[in-house]
Amino acid sequence: MGGKAGGHHSRISTLMIDCLADRFEDSIGFWTRALGLRPPRRPAKNQRYVTLGRIEGPLFVRLQKVERDPGYHLDIESDRLDAEVERLESAGARRKYRIKRWWVLEDPSGNPFCVIRPESDDFPGNASHWEDTSR
Amino acid sequence: MGGKAGGHHSRISTLMIDCLADRFEDSIGFWTRALGLRPPRRPAKNQRYVTLGRIEGPLFVRLQKVERDPGYHLDIESDRLDAEVERLESAGARRKYRIKRWWVLEDPSGNPFCVIRPESDDFPGNASHWEDTSR
Repeated sequence: MGGKAGGHHSRISTLMIDCLADRFEDSIGFWTRALGLRPPRRPAKNQRYVTLGRIEGPLFVRLQKVERDPGYHLDIESDRLDAEVERLESAGARRKYRIKRWWVLEDPSGNPFCVIRPESDDFPGNASHWEDTSR
Repeated sequence: MGGKAGGHHSRISTLMIDCLADRFEDSIGFWTRALGLRPPRRPAKNQRYVTLGRIEGPLFVRLQKVERDPGYHLDIESDRLDAEVERLESAGARRKYRIKRWWVLEDPSGNPFCVIRPESDDFPGNASHWEDTSR
């Protein structure tokens, strides 16, 4: 079943986040904290890729119809929107605006993501747990 | 542990693919076939979101340093690059160029993704298996 004869195999293996060179270290710091991953070794100057870790699925794949600006973005589900938005801000994200019941933020390179209410049946399941230390 | 007191929870729940309105149905068709998911019901005219399904993880999260054009993109790993690129082309993707040992393609809305060699230890693991029907 090596895939040489009788077909082949494929799957999505990686979510790649393309970060501006002058925000690369900030972006590494942000995503590490955002996802609760272990900080990677500081990248060498000419290092172009940094693997932060693996996130457990499953992930919904959804398509949104937009009039302009196609792209990908991520939704982060949380049981306390305001606390999660504050946490992500303090990790280096920028709060953009609130739409209905969710928040739109961007990472240090300007990559958009949303913070939404829980939508998975099994939430919190394997979600990260965060202590609210700010108050 | 409802997250109301003593902290809160969060996790990435959704990969959202923002698709141009006039390519929305093509994009649904493409991603359904690309990921081997069951076709969703045809969207109503004013429907803005379509859930295709859930993909199993885990996924590597990687950061790439770029000089311009930040964003997210996906890597699809496959044990037969050429067959996988052909399959994705016939599903509606556009082949852009080859870099070293991987291919860069884009979906019907212009969203970029790469087809790369297997990089996961457990590949093919839960990957989809495709029959090569073209010859």
